[in-house]
Amino acid sequence: MKILLINPNISESVTALIEAEARRAASPGTEFTAVTASFGVAYIETRFEALVGGYAAACLAGEHWSGHDAVIVAAFGDPGMPALREAVPVPVVGLTESALATACLLGARFSIVAISRRIVGWYRDTVAACGLSDRLAGFRFLDTPLRDPGSVQADHEAALEALCRQAVEEDGADVVIIAGAPLAGLARSIRDRVPVPLVDGVSSAVRQAETLAALRTRRPAAGGYAPPPIKPNQGLPAPIERLLRGG
Amino acid sequence: MKILLINPNISESVTALIEAEARRAASPGTEFTAVTASFGVAYIETRFEALVGGYAAACLAGEHWSGHDAVIVAAFGDPGMPALREAVPVPVVGLTESALATACLLGARFSIVAISRRIVGWYRDTVAACGLSDRLAGFRFLDTPLRDPGSVQADHEAALEALCRQAVEEDGADVVIIAGAPLAGLARSIRDRVPVPLVDGVSSAVRQAETLAALRTRRPAAGGYAPPPIKPNQGLPAPIERLLRGG
Amino acid sequence: MKILLINPNISESVTALIEAEARRAASPGTEFTAVTASFGVAYIETRFEALVGGYAAACLAGEHWSGHDAVIVAAFGDPGMPALREAVPVPVVGLTESALATACLLGARFSIVAISRRIVGWYRDTVAACGLSDRLAGFRFLDTPLRDPGSVQADHEAALEALCRQAVEEDGADVVIIAGAPLAGLARSIRDRVPVPLVDGVSSAVRQAETLAALRTRRPAAGGYAPPPIKPNQGLPAPIERLLRGG
Amino acid sequence: MKILLINPNISESVTALIEAEARRAASPGTEFTAVTASFGVAYIETRFEALVGGYAAACLAGEHWSGHDAVIVAAFGDPGMPALREAVPVPVVGLTESALATACLLGARFSIVAISRRIVGWYRDTVAACGLSDRLAGFRFLDTPLRDPGSVQADHEAALEALCRQAVEEDGADVVIIAGAPLAGLARSIRDRVPVPLVDGVSSAVRQAETLAALRTRRPAAGGYAPPPIKPNQGLPAPIERLLRGG
Amino acid sequence: MKILLINPNISESVTALIEAEARRAASPGTEFTAVTASFGVAYIETRFEALVGGYAAACLAGEHWSGHDAVIVAAFGDPGMPALREAVPVPVVGLTESALATACLLGARFSIVAISRRIVGWYRDTVAACGLSDRLAGFRFLDTPLRDPGSVQADHEAALEALCRQAVEEDGADVVIIAGAPLAGLARSIRDRVPVPLVDGVSSAVRQAETLAALRTRRPAAGGYAPPPIKPNQGLPAPIERLLRGG
Amino acid sequence: MKILLINPNISESVTALIEAEARRAASPGTEFTAVTASFGVAYIETRFEALVGGYAAACLAGEHWSGHDAVIVAAFGDPGMPALREAVPVPVVGLTESALATACLLGARFSIVAISRRIVGWYRDTVAACGLSDRLAGFRFLDTPLRDPGSVQADHEAALEALCRQAVEEDGADVVIIAGAPLAGLARSIRDRVPVPLVDGVSSAVRQAETLAALRTRRPAAGGYAPPPIKPNQGLPAPIERLLRGG
Repeated sequence: MKILLINPNISESVTALIEAEARRAASPGTEFTAVTASFGVAYIETRFEALVGGYAAACLAGEHWSGHDAVIVAAFGDPGMPALREAVPVPVVGLTESALATACLLGARFSIVAISRRIVGWYRDTVAACGLSDRLAGFRFLDTPLRDPGSVQADHEAALEALCRQAVEEDGADVVIIAGAPLAGLARSIRDRVPVPLVDGVSSAVRQAETLAALRTRRPAAGGYAPPPIKPNQGLPAPIERLLRGG
Repeated sequence: MKILLINPNISESVTALIEAEARRAASPGTEFTAVTASFGVAYIETRFEALVGGYAAACLAGEHWSGHDAVIVAAFGDPGMPALREAVPVPVVGLTESALATACLLGARFSIVAISRRIVGWYRDTVAACGLSDRLAGFRFLDTPLRDPGSVQADHEAALEALCRQAVEEDGADVVIIAGAPLAGLARSIRDRVPVPLVDGVSSAVRQAETLAALRTRRPAAGGYAPPPIKPNQGLPAPIERLLRGG
Repeated sequence: MKILLINPNISESVTALIEAEARRAASPGTEFTAVTASFGVAYIETRFEALVGGYAAACLAGEHWSGHDAVIVAAFGDPGMPALREAVPVPVVGLTESALATACLLGARFSIVAISRRIVGWYRDTVAACGLSDRLAGFRFLDTPLRDPGSVQADHEAALEALCRQAVEEDGADVVIIAGAPLAGLARSIRDRVPVPLVDGVSSAVRQAETLAALRTRRPAAGGYAPPPIKPNQGLPAPIERLLRGG
Repeated sequence: MKILLINPNISESVTALIEAEARRAASPGTEFTAVTASFGVAYIETRFEALVGGYAAACLAGEHWSGHDAVIVAAFGDPGMPALREAVPVPVVGLTESALATACLLGARFSIVAISRRIVGWYRDTVAACGLSDRLAGFRFLDTPLRDPGSVQADHEAALEALCRQAVEEDGADVVIIAGAPLAGLARSIRDRVPVPLVDGVSSAVRQAETLAALRTRRPAAGGYAPPPIKPNQGLPAPIERLLRGG
Repeated sequence: MKILLINPNISESVTALIEAEARRAASPGTEFTAVTASFGVAYIETRFEALVGGYAAACLAGEHWSGHDAVIVAAFGDPGMPALREAVPVPVVGLTESALATACLLGARFSIVAISRRIVGWYRDTVAACGLSDRLAGFRFLDTPLRDPGSVQADHEAALEALCRQAVEEDGADVVIIAGAPLAGLARSIRDRVPVPLVDGVSSAVRQAETLAALRTRRPAAGGYAPPPIKPNQGLPAPIERLLRGG
Repeated sequence: MKILLINPNISESVTALIEAEARRAASPGTEFTAVTASFGVAYIETRFEALVGGYAAACLAGEHWSGHDAVIVAAFGDPGMPALREAVPVPVVGLTESALATACLLGARFSIVAISRRIVGWYRDTVAACGLSDRLAGFRFLDTPLRDPGSVQADHEAALEALCRQAVEEDGADVVIIAGAPLAGLARSIRDRVPVPLVDGVSSAVRQAETLAALRTRRPAAGGYAPPPIKPNQGLPAPIERLLRGG
């Protein structure tokens, strides 16, 4: 099985982190192509940055999806994901929705630990878009400026662990989702120091992508996720144009 | 007052329709700049087309917002709107959220009449994102291929009127929203032939944009709609880059 | 355009405050008739006082609506509003629903700052009746006895500003609604001292009333907001009786 | 135990119907005082009529509650009920909330059968105000003009029975609530001809009122249902004024 | 009237407590049969213990229901209740749903005070299953190991009273439900020391069971609470097998 | 990896069906132990049968879980699942929650196709318990008596396919879940004859169980899914008693 891993922002260091965690989580035989946005921002915290990242993800998906069995939009918040699910001929999953799918199978209520205060509004929208706000126990977040997205988990491990514990003790979380591609793998590192299951977006997305590919569900020809109808377009990058023609 | 009208798709005929309806609805003294996406599709029906349209809207907003008091994203479904609300220094409104704001002041439950079956999934997401799904009585839609977005209301006026009446009689709507920029003005034309108030996105958006500009609310410096934090970026079109630097 | 401003309680000082703020917010050419309840309480904090105020508002509406293009029920909590929307032949809006309409166009989640602890239960019902509880970040309220509704904003300005800031920092509000006619205008005064947009009920209602009048939506003849069916009645004040006969 | 039965509309024939059904449903030793609004309409179908009926109910409650152990607002839709719960020193219940309480103990989803199409909007608001919209399977209603509220169940028994059956077969109701004081007792008459439990508002309210009185819960001195704070008032009918002074 | 009181756990001391409170709350002439699970745990705090308790309750119900007019599952959380409502030929109520029914008639929002932190997850599920999460102000709970379920209210009365007051002052509860059969009667003891109505599960359930029996609603023959269809079974205890055959 | 497949009802033919589909869906190297309830009913359609099946599943889980990496409760409706998730030391998943997790990654709204009208009430509860009612487009169901659960898909294939198509065309489903262990595998057989993705509970559960086992999340020691506290018990089957002692 081949999975396309799309980092919708421009940080190669984060792509490397994502890819490493993906390899650790994958089934035997799963291979990855990891690609990084050629345009965009260092890391996405806002709806506007997600709009940019979603467009970058669409360009990458259009260019690279062929030859893969599934696509992962590897940023928490799932920029561009619902759109790509319509347009890409193979299954597409995002980190948030995959982490939520996993978390829902481990407990009734989950909290989300995030890398900044500013990012919470966008994440909250994403959880609501998944229809799961009623299972959200709350958010906990770092509240200091980030030096570098590639080193945030090393720089703040103790603080992040404390946030996880607060989510359990004060918010009543049964499960804690550690959000954001820059934190990929942290759930593994601090697993034994927090008393509830920790869920990681990258590894969840890898397994959910494998699942959808393995189940071989068909591409819809009707309903709200059928391919966009063919119609006039202009001025589009070739990969986008190709997706509009059916992939 | 000056308002920037952004058509996030490439149909000049629809831009003309939007601008004409905007002028009819505006207060004395309100002026419009109407711009059309230089890239994208003929009309947006899907999440993927909305992703493209949202990016086009962002490019147009970054290039043209300066000198205006408010910005309207003039496609139903509000492509790019939440993102632009963060990044553009003046108020930004979309057709859907504006139509919903108007409709909620006219009755308890609204139905939405739309130009195609395919478009409903995307619209439903948008209503949910506004938190108003519980006031949605239902959707009614044309179910025939569209010849031309610029002439859809002329081509299908009787069918659209019948859909409005069904929304009242069968779905129990107190108000009917006629959705989609290509239908701009239809609410006025068939006003006396449907027994409940009809709401139009373009005219609602014009009035809501005027309202936000007139109330002179401040640009947020905190919360989930503050401007995106300044951080490294690369490869972006100048208008997007400028919005990321604060507008 | 002529708008009828109804203060459903007996405080002339609050009527003056409302009218002054309404004039500041209005479009050129908009004129107001401001009327005060001849019976009722000094200010409404509870469902029971709202029942009384709603009846007073209905009497005033029936007596004075004619010759106006829209009616504003100028108390937060919107006493009598849904009922008047059915019975008065021109558009009717309340302060709460109008403030919510404005707030929803400025951010995802709003908090409400109020003049007393006791008032919160009633306000919460009102937000729920608008279907917007999911966007409510929380309430903040003064918790000291009020000397006089006419001077509450002068007496407590610093405390009210602090509540607004707490709503942003602790509740994660994107927007703060300053609730209650006695606080009309405070949003303007402290605008630069709170880091998110502040929304005022009176000015929002003035603009929304102007919008509905300008859009010239029809009076419903069907649905849940059509005029009440004609039927036997007795013992009613003339203005109420007139509304029951169709206005 | 003594219960005050308030008919918030002016139809003596409906008061008689209510009182007869109340006596049938009551525990041994329960006595009723049944009072009819001296002003208002023949029967309440709309929010505006409910505003009038709520005020009439408040006048009757203020005048007559003393010497009773509980008060029933005996119109479906519960006009004035939340307000009276604050202001009357003994428990107050409405027909809708009582019928919902009973229905929720008999199945997961309930439908409501009503006497007119026009009444549904108001009833829907009431169910939502009780927080129970998610358990509502739907509405079914007579769609012919009513000759007389006192004889509606005799005039339309077969049609009403058919509506109940449709609620089960087409809407999937586990329980059917027969709504409206004019239908008091119908649930008993057609009990064996509909395959699910039928719930009647009057008998439910009698039992719930007895329950609250028997449980001797205290009158709140805090929270959102404490008595309204004492403050200046003017121009009020004596019974209302007395309730504002604490009962 | 005869009511079967089922304690789904093995603590005879709690059965005695339940029965005593039931007798205090009952109408004249109501008699009780109180039975205790022959297998299970000392008190139920978790979903797994509730599964065991639900099965024990089913065995007791099948064995003892005959000759009774209604059945009460006398543990908060209502183990087995929805299942028994289908299978037992007379009305079945649980403590939680009954307490919620009562609480909803006394105020808009209720809090729940519980005997342990661990129990909250299960209780939250139960409130959600009743569709009433939106009226839940919050949970407050003892956070110390329990010596004995039979003496928990005597051992912790002051702490429980303090939790009730916090629910009012900090969570904004209009009503407080004191949860768990081991706390039966506490609402009466501390009634005058908490400023809002306190609701007790056992007494509420007794009154609701009497109400359902008195209203003589029919057993459903359709809908989701009709008796389970007859089909092959094996290996079941006689009381369960009898319920599967129709009671 | 070893997975325990629990059929909570007594039909060996259905166990065989489940096991065959599980093997088809599994990753290389995954092995199954399939066990069938020794007591219970032929197939579960109601809450009461689910109570029995849940208890049977708990007995089987306690007896057989050791030596396995995950447990599947292989009946749609997930009888006993939330309880087993607390008590079994390895991950436990149900067919419904697994199918929902898969469906949510394939579209916005799903419909559920079921084997009988009677089963819908119970399934609806289960979807609500997962917090996903807002994404449910509707139910479609066979409405004829079933000859044999083991042959239902062969007996009714054309009817089931038609129900799937109606879910798409009339209810607007993006995805259709084919519910009930007796239909295991049907999604594969009719995959090309329905225009949207079809989701099967058994194969989804196999993949989700593998995912949870592979992610090696820890067993909770806090929160609402920690093991039940140790406390006195009596009269329990050994497998249940062992689970109460920690597994």
